[in-house]
Amino acid sequence: MRRDRVFLAATLTVLFSADLYFVLLPKLWSRGLGREPELYCSCGLDNITLPNRTSGTPLVTAALHPVEDEDEQGSKLQRLFAHPLYNIQTPVLELWELLLQEEQLMDYYKKKVSRWGRTMKYYSKAAAATNVTVIQHEATFDPSASWLTFHKGINRYALYSRDGPMVLKLLQDMKNMTLINADYTQDEKALRGECDCTEVVKPSGHNLKLALKMSNMGKAMFKPMRQQRDQETPENVFYFVDLQRHNAEIAAFHLDRILDFRRVPPVAGRRVNVTREILHITLNEDLRSVFFVSPANNTCFFAKCLYMCKTEYAVCGGPDLLEGSLAAYLPGLSIAPRVSIQNPWSRSYDFTKKEAWEVNQSYCERLRMIHPYSSGNRLLNIIDMSIFDFLTGNMDRHHYEIFTKFGDEGFLLHLDNARGFGKHSQDEMSILTPLTQCCMIKRSTLLRLKLLAQPKFRLSDVMRESLQGDALWPILTEPHLSALDRRLLKVLRAVGHCIRRLGNDEVITGDFIASADHNQAMEHYFSTEGSKVR
Amino acid sequence: MRRDRVFLAATLTVLFSADLYFVLLPKLWSRGLGREPELYCSCGLDNITLPNRTSGTPLVTAALHPVEDEDEQGSKLQRLFAHPLYNIQTPVLELWELLLQEEQLMDYYKKKVSRWGRTMKYYSKAAAATNVTVIQHEATFDPSASWLTFHKGINRYALYSRDGPMVLKLLQDMKNMTLINADYTQDEKALRGECDCTEVVKPSGHNLKLALKMSNMGKAMFKPMRQQRDQETPENVFYFVDLQRHNAEIAAFHLDRILDFRRVPPVAGRRVNVTREILHITLNEDLRSVFFVSPANNTCFFAKCLYMCKTEYAVCGGPDLLEGSLAAYLPGLSIAPRVSIQNPWSRSYDFTKKEAWEVNQSYCERLRMIHPYSSGNRLLNIIDMSIFDFLTGNMDRHHYEIFTKFGDEGFLLHLDNARGFGKHSQDEMSILTPLTQCCMIKRSTLLRLKLLAQPKFRLSDVMRESLQGDALWPILTEPHLSALDRRLLKVLRAVGHCIRRLGNDEVITGDFIASADHNQAMEHYFSTEGSKVR
Repeated sequence: MRRDRVFLAATLTVLFSADLYFVLLPKLWSRGLGREPELYCSCGLDNITLPNRTSGTPLVTAALHPVEDEDEQGSKLQRLFAHPLYNIQTPVLELWELLLQEEQLMDYYKKKVSRWGRTMKYYSKAAAATNVTVIQHEATFDPSASWLTFHKGINRYALYSRDGPMVLKLLQDMKNMTLINADYTQDEKALRGECDCTEVVKPSGHNLKLALKMSNMGKAMFKPMRQQRDQETPENVFYFVDLQRHNAEIAAFHLDRILDFRRVPPVAGRRVNVTREILHITLNEDLRSVFFVSPANNTCFFAKCLYMCKTEYAVCGGPDLLEGSLAAYLPGLSIAPRVSIQNPWSRSYDFTKKEAWEVNQSYCERLRMIHPYSSGNRLLNIIDMSIFDFLTGNMDRHHYEIFTKFGDEGFLLHLDNARGFGKHSQDEMSILTPLTQCCMIKRSTLLRLKLLAQPKFRLSDVMRESLQGDALWPILTEPHLSALDRRLLKVLRAVGHCIRRLGNDEVITGDFIASADHNQAMEHYFSTEGSKVR
Repeated sequence: MRRDRVFLAATLTVLFSADLYFVLLPKLWSRGLGREPELYCSCGLDNITLPNRTSGTPLVTAALHPVEDEDEQGSKLQRLFAHPLYNIQTPVLELWELLLQEEQLMDYYKKKVSRWGRTMKYYSKAAAATNVTVIQHEATFDPSASWLTFHKGINRYALYSRDGPMVLKLLQDMKNMTLINADYTQDEKALRGECDCTEVVKPSGHNLKLALKMSNMGKAMFKPMRQQRDQETPENVFYFVDLQRHNAEIAAFHLDRILDFRRVPPVAGRRVNVTREILHITLNEDLRSVFFVSPANNTCFFAKCLYMCKTEYAVCGGPDLLEGSLAAYLPGLSIAPRVSIQNPWSRSYDFTKKEAWEVNQSYCERLRMIHPYSSGNRLLNIIDMSIFDFLTGNMDRHHYEIFTKFGDEGFLLHLDNARGFGKHSQDEMSILTPLTQCCMIKRSTLLRLKLLAQPKFRLSDVMRESLQGDALWPILTEPHLSALDRRLLKVLRAVGHCIRRLGNDEVITGDFIASADHNQAMEHYFSTEGSKVR
């Protein structure tokens, strides 16, 4: 408990200093000059001296990919990650704060490896009997495997920590490691090749994705490229039938990390050889059966759902290589169950019906009265997510997931971001509705957004730099990068409007409102000390 | 029988004269100059004097649309239709040679009008009871309606005659006439909103077509625009899932007429107001239910088949106007039954399987032994169709239809041409397989093809001119028009190869091989006189 207090005191000192510089002083200045308070959101923050680094920890993974030793003028991304806001020291985590216990995970891993061994043996025998050659890849047991380090590190604050080489290593593994199996995902298997056409949300014909297994038994979800970088979603297409974009998955991971949310599992781009790395290694007959050679002699495959009708949805290699995104799998549901909850601002999947939030401007007031939105971080987390989705332009956030273990106060996983980055020319303001209706935002989120609006750390620049290391670079076109800056200003402007209406104290909300389930002492602290900072 | 003889004598005289100029003289010349006989196919026919017009009939519909009184240099299309090859006089038709008897047709028409009256009355009452406004359009009974003239004129030689104002009138009616009803076609109704996914040939999600009724009770099949004129079919897309193109339907009608086949029902382009001319007038609840307003505020609708999954297939007005092709309906199956027969050169709809014709070069020899390909015109008609399809690039000719009444010797209807004109840059030689494997062609077809290869009548020029009158001009881009010329030369070259191998007499086949069922006297004539020209 003592440790928590020290940690919180440090955190709050940093936040308060930043607050002083960002919020209070500009406010006083603007009042003195007779300017409107919303100007404080227009990001004229260039001259503000930011607090110095408070942590001496070396920033091992400031950039996700090896970056030249650049000076302060060079790497904006390194400079961003060196900023105090990105260096609030996290305490050494107690066991109960981790998603998984090490022994449990190692046990799970060993079982997986030996099951794979048995499977391979079975297929060898079957192949010998039928005289068919099956390409077999051995799985290795590696206790230092990057995906294992990733799973071990998931805790109640985020999916991964800021420092440590894990993320970089995992991205490199997904990019380079030998693939030993390819299969449908559990979602697709559950459909059994049929389309559930009543569920408009997931017309699986388009959700052509595969689970790929690496030689160290790590798993990644593969989403193939379906659209050129410079193609925009046609104006008449609804968000829920929009194509899924592999580059949006990659970019969303980088953006989430730059916003310091760390709620998106690592995603790397890779050129997969669909013949050698999927067709020849899969053990799934159904998957093999959807491969074909196109009229242009390229190897293609298509979604299982109503497959004979779906060749128009096929993706093709050129002739074998196919771009795609590989997203690291979270730990299996059997050891780390998650709950999927409908987004209270989800959209209507009917052509005419309006959702409650679309017609009722006091929707948030009503929602605040209902558990779990009545207390704690949940609403603030939803608002974080809406800002993230607004920046990417993703309108398809119908559900969100949280780890059951962390209860109502758990962070929201930002999974499934492939429908972002569809239109750079349009800013879909309705995605920001949770922010504009509830008029609240986490102090830490706001401070980081303001930092990223400064030319010194400009969001588009740090994103461009972060994406440069991906194998499929360029991930986003320049118009998409510029859209990020434009949208960021719109978020800040929306916060400004709220502050004008309700005042700073109502809008800017302290972080770390702990839940009774998990940390009563922390709650106590907030009810006494914490209220001063709110 | 006498009349027939006179007609045939005239026909054969024209064909023989043309044959003399096109085939025999160039052959003699080329032999004299020591050139290879295939050069006769390379269209160096510019200097050949063609026989003069043999008919004094005024060419009322030389061009489908009003054309300025141009001199001989001006309208290539008028010059083409003035050519003797396009003026072989057809005899006055006997009653049995017509598809329908006038009384039968008028009876059918009257019944239709009165049934429509009853339907309108029913909907008026229903609307009064439910207080819903239904826009009602009266149907008029017009014994001189163009569609009626079209149906009356269908005979055992062709769908319409070369002269007479009917075609022009029908095209104008389809372009301008008030629409009084819109509904799914019988094909779509038979599916009852389900996709028959085993039948890959017709993934109805893409076959978004409607039956439109005009105020004079004429009916047309509407196929909406789904693709820009300059878009080419992507290289990996199979012919059977390729989009259907409204402009291909329009262009195919004009091409068929220029080739003097007259086996495609008239097709006109029209900008339809999807709200006023479909949504507001349809009586079909299902059709109304697939209309929606897109994110860009355009009125859209989609295919009924698995409709909740199919918004990605939707077509949209801008905001209401939507381009489409209107193809005149043939008489109903109840009064003019047709039989649909699998094309012996149909393609495999399996990814790997090869059809017999693809692997067996003597496929045609075997086919010739099987009824109905063992005698008469059928094989020659199939070869005509393959030339037509090769020119448009349509690979999707899985079936063909003939009117039951005309038996085995009936002409083949060239229906459903919307998958032509997909790629201008590729000439799909396999479509010509019936010609290259059977090595035979109707003399009249060959003569017309050769005429169209001459600069004086160049196919692309007469097509461009013919298409100019359509409301949706330009129908084909210049690369598609040039492709027609290039492909025409390839057809002539293929014939040349056959002639080199087998000689003129084997390859170039006399027309009008009548069937025993229909005209024994004609058959007799051919067995005596006709053999001389073969």
